[in-house]
Amino acid sequence: MQIDLRRALAPASDFSAGVLIQGERGSFHHRATELLLPGVDVVPMASFPALASRLEAGSRQLGLMAIENSVAGALLTNYLLIEQHDLRIVAEIYLRISHSLMAPPTASIADLRTVESHPMALAQCRGFFAANTHLRPVEAYDTAGGAEIIARAADPHRAALAPIWCAAPLGLQVLAEAVEDSPHNWTRFVLVRHRHALSTSEFDVEASAAKSSVAFSLAHDPGSLALALTALAEKDCSLTKIQSLPIVGEPWAYRIFADYLRPEGLASSAVLHTLGQLTRNLTHLGDYAEGQHHQPT
Amino acid sequence: MQIDLRRALAPASDFSAGVLIQGERGSFHHRATELLLPGVDVVPMASFPALASRLEAGSRQLGLMAIENSVAGALLTNYLLIEQHDLRIVAEIYLRISHSLMAPPTASIADLRTVESHPMALAQCRGFFAANTHLRPVEAYDTAGGAEIIARAADPHRAALAPIWCAAPLGLQVLAEAVEDSPHNWTRFVLVRHRHALSTSEFDVEASAAKSSVAFSLAHDPGSLALALTALAEKDCSLTKIQSLPIVGEPWAYRIFADYLRPEGLASSAVLHTLGQLTRNLTHLGDYAEGQHHQPT
Repeated sequence: MQIDLRRALAPASDFSAGVLIQGERGSFHHRATELLLPGVDVVPMASFPALASRLEAGSRQLGLMAIENSVAGALLTNYLLIEQHDLRIVAEIYLRISHSLMAPPTASIADLRTVESHPMALAQCRGFFAANTHLRPVEAYDTAGGAEIIARAADPHRAALAPIWCAAPLGLQVLAEAVEDSPHNWTRFVLVRHRHALSTSEFDVEASAAKSSVAFSLAHDPGSLALALTALAEKDCSLTKIQSLPIVGEPWAYRIFADYLRPEGLASSAVLHTLGQLTRNLTHLGDYAEGQHHQPT
Repeated sequence: MQIDLRRALAPASDFSAGVLIQGERGSFHHRATELLLPGVDVVPMASFPALASRLEAGSRQLGLMAIENSVAGALLTNYLLIEQHDLRIVAEIYLRISHSLMAPPTASIADLRTVESHPMALAQCRGFFAANTHLRPVEAYDTAGGAEIIARAADPHRAALAPIWCAAPLGLQVLAEAVEDSPHNWTRFVLVRHRHALSTSEFDVEASAAKSSVAFSLAHDPGSLALALTALAEKDCSLTKIQSLPIVGEPWAYRIFADYLRPEGLASSAVLHTLGQLTRNLTHLGDYAEGQHHQPT
């Protein structure tokens, strides 16, 4: 599937410029990029808004963004960035989020005093800290970045919580694997590119893409969303995600972000045409193949 | 409205035990509690799961939880906590999230070196840091807690980003008000209590409550959500929020969290009866009056 994705994107993509990611090398964004596009390098960006702006400027460049997490929910700001910067989703992937305890080779869990990681990672490992009360959580800017700091400090009292693949390249030992509370912690990442980069030929290559993402607004009418979803159902499209977002400053108005799978042989344009008649300000956020789920390795 | 809420909740509430909140005194949770139930004290809790467990144990106690933010999205874990711990929403309120720069009386913006706050608050003020490149953001555990540390340190090079009402009690001066990027940053908080605390008499008092929250699952059928929403529309119920959450381990299955406003005279039980026939595992998360929007003061 990876080879097909690379071939499908090639006519309008600049792989040599690397895929823009949020966060550092070794992060979950980096791993997701490697799985989607093996052999393509990444370019760390400081923030999602910076990433989206740069994609708008360089229309053949690709970027990867986390879009929702099964525990924490949707990253609504990223949905808005995709829409505001005229980006299109060209692929998706699901990655299991798992944190391992890593420390210098001379360390043991009993001798550790502090465990450093991103606040979100610390919050996802509450049970581990409750079971190891001698460990004090310390907030760091990034999971992979925190592991680097621990490797440089080489202090047997300090450990990091980071993705397991960060340990070996930094010379850290893994003291405990997968210490997160929930075994159901998945993040969905989407590969995006400016819509100007979509060539006609590419649409043909991607004709097999079964999943579509859209955003739309609705009339101020109790049944307007029901009508739109009924139309999707009549076309045998399966809704895989729906999310309303209030439009601030417009009481009673909200914007709907929805993903659906189309049955074989149904063109995306036919569904968009119908939805366009039943909704307001429809935005097509992309057609792409349904993503696979990957465990950390 | 506040007086009515207190009266409505009184038969089955222990106000003297205080309202459980996540975070410290001076936090947005504290402010939201003051606005909903003036004169009732708060009890700071370390986490939302701890708060929910304690509500389940003490069935007359109230708790306040952030449930969604207009920029960051829904706090899905809190929706799940409400459902898993059999809590019911009894009130809601919307609070504008705004951060002010505060420092000791002798400080000036030009002389500041670091600005400390919760990572989420720092992330919401990127424009301010871009315009003041001499300031280095430093992560703190809590917004209100960070302001306390700055007040104790009394260092003219260190400032905090915190809610404006934190400044005066700590003897800090406000150097800049509302430095957050988005003027559309609102958080919705819900007041919750264990469902055993709901007495029959209280249901009568709350008969005027126009808003309902529910969670349900659906048949594996493209049109099942459309049918449920059509039934709501036929009863003139206006959907104010909808959010799907994949059920991990059950491919294609998801749980829907929805809020709707009922027209005058339509009992909540009538809507629940209809939804119960069209959905699976319906959970009633509460009936309550629609919340007001409050600016920071």
